Amino acid sequence: MISSLKNIEPRISILGAGPGDPGLITVKGAKALQHADVVLYDALVNKNLLDYTKKDCVKVYVGKRAGKHSFSQDEINDLMVKYAQMYGYVVRLKGGDPFVFGRGYEELKYAMDRNIPVCVIPGISSSISVPELQGIPLTTRGYSESFCVLTASNAKGELTNAIKEAVQTNATIVILMGFKKLTQIVKLFKAQGKNELPVAVIENGSAENERIILGQVNDIVERSAEFKISGPTLMVFGEVVKLHQDYHKILENYAYAN
Amino acid sequence: MISSLKNIEPRISILGAGPGDPGLITVKGAKALQHADVVLYDALVNKNLLDYTKKDCVKVYVGKRAGKHSFSQDEINDLMVKYAQMYGYVVRLKGGDPFVFGRGYEELKYAMDRNIPVCVIPGISSSISVPELQGIPLTTRGYSESFCVLTASNAKGELTNAIKEAVQTNATIVILMGFKKLTQIVKLFKAQGKNELPVAVIENGSAENERIILGQVNDIVERSAEFKISGPTLMVFGEVVKLHQDYHKILENYAYAN
Repeated sequence: MISSLKNIEPRISILGAGPGDPGLITVKGAKALQHADVVLYDALVNKNLLDYTKKDCVKVYVGKRAGKHSFSQDEINDLMVKYAQMYGYVVRLKGGDPFVFGRGYEELKYAMDRNIPVCVIPGISSSISVPELQGIPLTTRGYSESFCVLTASNAKGELTNAIKEAVQTNATIVILMGFKKLTQIVKLFKAQGKNELPVAVIENGSAENERIILGQVNDIVERSAEFKISGPTLMVFGEVVKLHQDYHKILENYAYAN
Repeated sequence: MISSLKNIEPRISILGAGPGDPGLITVKGAKALQHADVVLYDALVNKNLLDYTKKDCVKVYVGKRAGKHSFSQDEINDLMVKYAQMYGYVVRLKGGDPFVFGRGYEELKYAMDRNIPVCVIPGISSSISVPELQGIPLTTRGYSESFCVLTASNAKGELTNAIKEAVQTNATIVILMGFKKLTQIVKLFKAQGKNELPVAVIENGSAENERIILGQVNDIVERSAEFKISGPTLMVFGEVVKLHQDYHKILENYAYAN
């Protein structure tokens, strides 16, 4: 055996990159990137995080974005394992947290079933941190004692049962990627008599081009229309939205209108 | 003016330490600790994180623990601002994420109202990461399309409305610090006919002495009894608990008993 031949020990980390600001990756996550032989990364990941990697690290974009070829989940799973067998340590870098609507569990399972050593390294979830960085706590005394995180549409593009159930509770509701369904979602809240429930729509959360639209169930569709939203969104429905420092402007506006 | 006199510029960061493993603090959080003149830290924070601080950093324990004097929230708010005025940069280091049942918003508001520059740096929330590190995703296709995070008791020690509402939904339910209420919680699930819903009780999540108890609504009280739980707990109710690698043992056990 030639001594210079590298002894490949395949292993995989499923790593959460956090919401966008590269400083919000964990210390453990940054170390994983430093040691990676291969990084497979998504569209929602801040590219500056790749600066942590070694010079000869193989960096592969596997994100899904309009117009370009996109990898299916099966292809990503397969790539992940093949790269581990060929190069050694693969870091699968995903936006937010890998286990919050991230299909990270499917990737973990795929590697485990093939006896590749694999672990998950949690990331800061956008669901909590994007509102937080806008000064909106998902829970706080006197406003909310619980929060629910969900997606608005299922694989068929229909409204989820989760949103139909959630509108009936007093929990703060966080909806990921549901902006296109906003008109239908608002209808569900109105059917519960929640016309004046505060709402925040946050586009490109924690990135430089972040925007926030504040309003109420009543008028959030109208208020959002002029913003021409095109980036990833997160929406918060709940009394806690009142705690945003600009919310008083909404209320003044209503007072003026009446 | 004597030139050696330090020009104090008070400012505060409300910082999330993550769930216990010190590697799960963010890169931004670690930097904040490196620059801190004062750190005010809680009981649930891993003490190794204090190793990031400068030699002359003032470190003050303000946690609440049985038997010892504990600081009230008002005292902590007051200390935080006074230290900032006396020393400069104060890091308020809190377990998990500061805005998830952490009263971090109250601290942010207190500083803002006194015109002290203040920001929040998100932390990895135990609510998501503690199940995740046990291999339990809060959502995954075919199992759950939403999750709810809540506390089981309100300030008066009564069951929250949040838990009464949540048991009626199909969301994965994460309950923080509610172990003493387990018998009452189980009763709520049984009233919904959810006797066989899988449950995980995790004690000291992400710490070295972590323990997990798996079961179903039916038997989780009995199964937990022998463990003599004394540390902080997190409980997960939902079909996703079946994805834990040891859950099959529970099912085998039932098959054997029947």
